[in-house]
Amino acid sequence: MHVVVPFDASEPKTRLAPVLDTGERSRFAAAMLRDVLETLRAAGHTPEVLATAPVDVGAPVTVDQQPLTPAVNAVLAAHEAPVLVVMADLPLVVPDTIRRLTGAGSDLALAPGLGGGTNAFCARHPAFRVDYHDGSYRKHRERAAACGATTTTVDSFRLALDIDKPDDLVEVLLHGEGHAETWLRRDGVRTRHRRARPHSCAMTASPR
Amino acid sequence: MHVVVPFDASEPKTRLAPVLDTGERSRFAAAMLRDVLETLRAAGHTPEVLATAPVDVGAPVTVDQQPLTPAVNAVLAAHEAPVLVVMADLPLVVPDTIRRLTGAGSDLALAPGLGGGTNAFCARHPAFRVDYHDGSYRKHRERAAACGATTTTVDSFRLALDIDKPDDLVEVLLHGEGHAETWLRRDGVRTRHRRARPHSCAMTASPR
Repeated sequence: MHVVVPFDASEPKTRLAPVLDTGERSRFAAAMLRDVLETLRAAGHTPEVLATAPVDVGAPVTVDQQPLTPAVNAVLAAHEAPVLVVMADLPLVVPDTIRRLTGAGSDLALAPGLGGGTNAFCARHPAFRVDYHDGSYRKHRERAAACGATTTTVDSFRLALDIDKPDDLVEVLLHGEGHAETWLRRDGVRTRHRRARPHSCAMTASPR
Repeated sequence: MHVVVPFDASEPKTRLAPVLDTGERSRFAAAMLRDVLETLRAAGHTPEVLATAPVDVGAPVTVDQQPLTPAVNAVLAAHEAPVLVVMADLPLVVPDTIRRLTGAGSDLALAPGLGGGTNAFCARHPAFRVDYHDGSYRKHRERAAACGATTTTVDSFRLALDIDKPDDLVEVLLHGEGHAETWLRRDGVRTRHRRARPHSCAMTASPR
């Protein structure tokens, strides 16, 4: 199975700007990418990175400066199905989650992100192509139906939680066990105390 | 298996106040409760409601005016294990999700909510008791370990997404298929247009 992890190497995780500076965001994004790559390897895959610029993370990297949609569609066109695409900002994913995605048994297994995006998919239908713009989860379901592909939605919070906003960081502290969680505890939390911005509350668990 | 759905019948879903008025919140909360009860029945259970005041939803209701923690602990003390507790604000849950929770095979199956709460659990250990205050997911794991119970975390966004805030409503529109989704499309969206508050953007899917 061809396995690809798209990664924005140019200016990653801009929505974390209220709590992490440019260098910190870059290091945190690389830590999340390493987590995703290790999880994929632990699930028996040999992932490749599809990046907007060269990045050194101990995996083969293809640089494609196109936007996400044409870059992923170029991968789908160039490789025989099945193709597995997992975003780089999913540090909570564990090997069992990946197995649920690849073992779903339909032509397209989709992992929705919070808010209606698509955080990962496993496509076994050669005609399926992506369109990541605005609410892609629903769009991908419609596209699959249009090319006669069956679809399964993978019900996983580990796949649903792309780490984008300050509020998401608490989830990494709660459920993460890899590089991103370690980085956040060591460097991110230190950062927080140094700055003491209001957003730092994002790192405290909420009630219930 | 004894199955309980705790429900705040007094003043439900106050955090939705920016987009729904008191009566609307009450009707929406009841619609979510009905969804959860129907899903539990479809998974083969006979759920009871544990409410802070009488409520008419076509299921047996026990009224307990205590806070959530002592009320749920009274249920755990009164019934032989296993006991399944599922919150009322999880309208995305489907029967398969419930089966993953009850079939997890450990002494305690925990479904974390976003932010570190506990949205549902299935306890097979007689000594387990809850404490819903502040970051209960981690606390429940520790408590289970302290009484020698094995724990599984159920990886489900359908169980993780308690519908609390305006931003959560988009998830109901995206993934819901029951009373809550219908109510929101019919009455909630009408409400939105009437008021045209900035929060209404909560009902639009975000990019990717």
